[in-house]
Amino acid sequence: MNVMKRIAQSALKKTLIVAMATGAMFSTQAFAAEKVYRLKLAETWGANFPIFGDATKNMAKMANEMSNGRLEIRIDSANKHKAPLGVFDMVKSGQYDMGHSGSYYWKGKVPNTLYFTSMPFGMLPAEQYAWFYYGGGMDLMNQVYSPHNLLSFPGGNTEFQMGGWFQKEINSVDDLKGLKMRIPGFAGEIMAELGAKPTNIAPGELYTALERRTIDALEWVGPSLDLRMGFHKIAPYYYTGWHEPGSELQFLVNKQVWEKLPADLQEILRISMKTAAYDMYIQAVHESGKNWASIKTEYPNVKVKDFPPEVMDALRAANDKLLKEHASQDPLAKEIQASQAAYLKEVRAWTDISTKAYLDNEAK
Amino acid sequence: MNVMKRIAQSALKKTLIVAMATGAMFSTQAFAAEKVYRLKLAETWGANFPIFGDATKNMAKMANEMSNGRLEIRIDSANKHKAPLGVFDMVKSGQYDMGHSGSYYWKGKVPNTLYFTSMPFGMLPAEQYAWFYYGGGMDLMNQVYSPHNLLSFPGGNTEFQMGGWFQKEINSVDDLKGLKMRIPGFAGEIMAELGAKPTNIAPGELYTALERRTIDALEWVGPSLDLRMGFHKIAPYYYTGWHEPGSELQFLVNKQVWEKLPADLQEILRISMKTAAYDMYIQAVHESGKNWASIKTEYPNVKVKDFPPEVMDALRAANDKLLKEHASQDPLAKEIQASQAAYLKEVRAWTDISTKAYLDNEAK
Repeated sequence: MNVMKRIAQSALKKTLIVAMATGAMFSTQAFAAEKVYRLKLAETWGANFPIFGDATKNMAKMANEMSNGRLEIRIDSANKHKAPLGVFDMVKSGQYDMGHSGSYYWKGKVPNTLYFTSMPFGMLPAEQYAWFYYGGGMDLMNQVYSPHNLLSFPGGNTEFQMGGWFQKEINSVDDLKGLKMRIPGFAGEIMAELGAKPTNIAPGELYTALERRTIDALEWVGPSLDLRMGFHKIAPYYYTGWHEPGSELQFLVNKQVWEKLPADLQEILRISMKTAAYDMYIQAVHESGKNWASIKTEYPNVKVKDFPPEVMDALRAANDKLLKEHASQDPLAKEIQASQAAYLKEVRAWTDISTKAYLDNEAK
Repeated sequence: MNVMKRIAQSALKKTLIVAMATGAMFSTQAFAAEKVYRLKLAETWGANFPIFGDATKNMAKMANEMSNGRLEIRIDSANKHKAPLGVFDMVKSGQYDMGHSGSYYWKGKVPNTLYFTSMPFGMLPAEQYAWFYYGGGMDLMNQVYSPHNLLSFPGGNTEFQMGGWFQKEINSVDDLKGLKMRIPGFAGEIMAELGAKPTNIAPGELYTALERRTIDALEWVGPSLDLRMGFHKIAPYYYTGWHEPGSELQFLVNKQVWEKLPADLQEILRISMKTAAYDMYIQAVHESGKNWASIKTEYPNVKVKDFPPEVMDALRAANDKLLKEHASQDPLAKEIQASQAAYLKEVRAWTDISTKAYLDNEAK
């Protein structure tokens, strides 16, 4: 809030108090315009975590400045609340007003949450935003979260994710058998189908787990974040991606908290979250480009590999099989899958004639 | 503004008036928080023009709701102000407070404005947003617009543009000679270099110009908007794109108008413009996918063509030659070109290992 505004607000409050003291007509609603709403947000990430943590700070700053200080959002990182993968529960119960996390982290609790981050062989970031905002995705996400006293909003796209860091080369499906890998979401189920041992581990513990060989491999994000995590120092192979073509984080808001906000602050919060999400996507593109360049120059020993076609075929077959299983068990899962599949088919035909044809031609 | 807020504001005003009447201490600054700012925006597009016109309406609605009615933006379309390509001058002079148009429309007036829409063989939408917001693009745009009493902001991406509608097939560079084509920006200069006769025509007159053969060809946007313009009824060939891989529209704001806004309304306006721009990009992706599908089913007679390699090579050679000429005449042009070229090189290496590799693999 700038200084002039503080003075103006202070003067306004004094005036109202004097007005009351002098017996002037007064409505308590007049104070509503001045009331400061203080919300607490729990994020899955550690303090000053880059990009993901920038999204929450960016959101809180926009909300504060646009509301002229009437909306104050305090961000508690994982080192504060100690429950990085407890964000869903803490916002549901009202212990926190808001959260910032990843929808697919909750699939053990609410299976249909897995569809709102990124799906293997699924949509790219812009395609998925189009599905969320113009293709029915927001409605479907709301159907999944509403019974849990939660509103969920897109929370920032990580941009296309790499396939992960591996201690040993993957030359066949056999090489996946028994492989202990940190890989969350539906991709983890696919890996399990092929004999791997998937697990999810909080971000702050990933480096140690890979270094001490608690796990043999991990996927985290891509060059935008992986280099800062230091994985290139402890694993030689970096595989290209298939499983998270455009992972969208999420903002969670407790329903009662949302409903108590005045209409203008609801809109300020909604737009601050939406813009912070878009901004994070663009920041991730930027950081990816920059860090990809530095891999090439500063870390020439990193071995960038594609999974062999045999492995890709097996991953895709397992993906299709597991999707069918989920759909057969739950009508809403079936509906979400059908919506995503139809949308992907339509939008990808356009992406192929435009972006893909252009990139192919430019690379010649 | 919702009803409760109106009541609250009304009560607040009454209270302050009573406070004044009773001789209570009063600061005029208290009223500043309540003052309604009314801005007029001129857009290049006609009334209810889809997508582009949705961006201005979306922006004005967000600004109004987030400010609780303190920021009212009236939108005048081209049929009202009658000067679709006069938006730059009208906002510069203060006749309008804001504008919505395309930066490259002003290249005849201020040559360096051409770099802030889309460049032939240039960046894709997300790459270009990354350049604007994280790669120095906003600073460079500001250097170009500031001497003209204007602030310029990204105003919505059209998504990848098609190469245009042609009355006759283009089989060689010779087929471009003498071709009268509506094609603005730098691409128009390239076409002229190869012997074509480029022109810019206001959107509302395009259909008639192509129908009456005032022009032989035109590019407008892509499937998102072209189908509604009806060009497929009057030109048989639809060429794939090369010249506008991610055209960004622009919001213009008169500098004095901006400076008079309180800090919170500046932030509300800035975020409303930014979000409306991102939203338009995603809406354009959605509409492109939908309309591309309908071309395939409803208009099977449209002949979708690629320019032959000979023509593409000539276009690229002309592009490189003309860029060098512009750079040699103006140090700022040289600086902008260098910034864009360096950014494109870095970010495209990442796009190729991520998006392109993924799309290539998925298309197999």
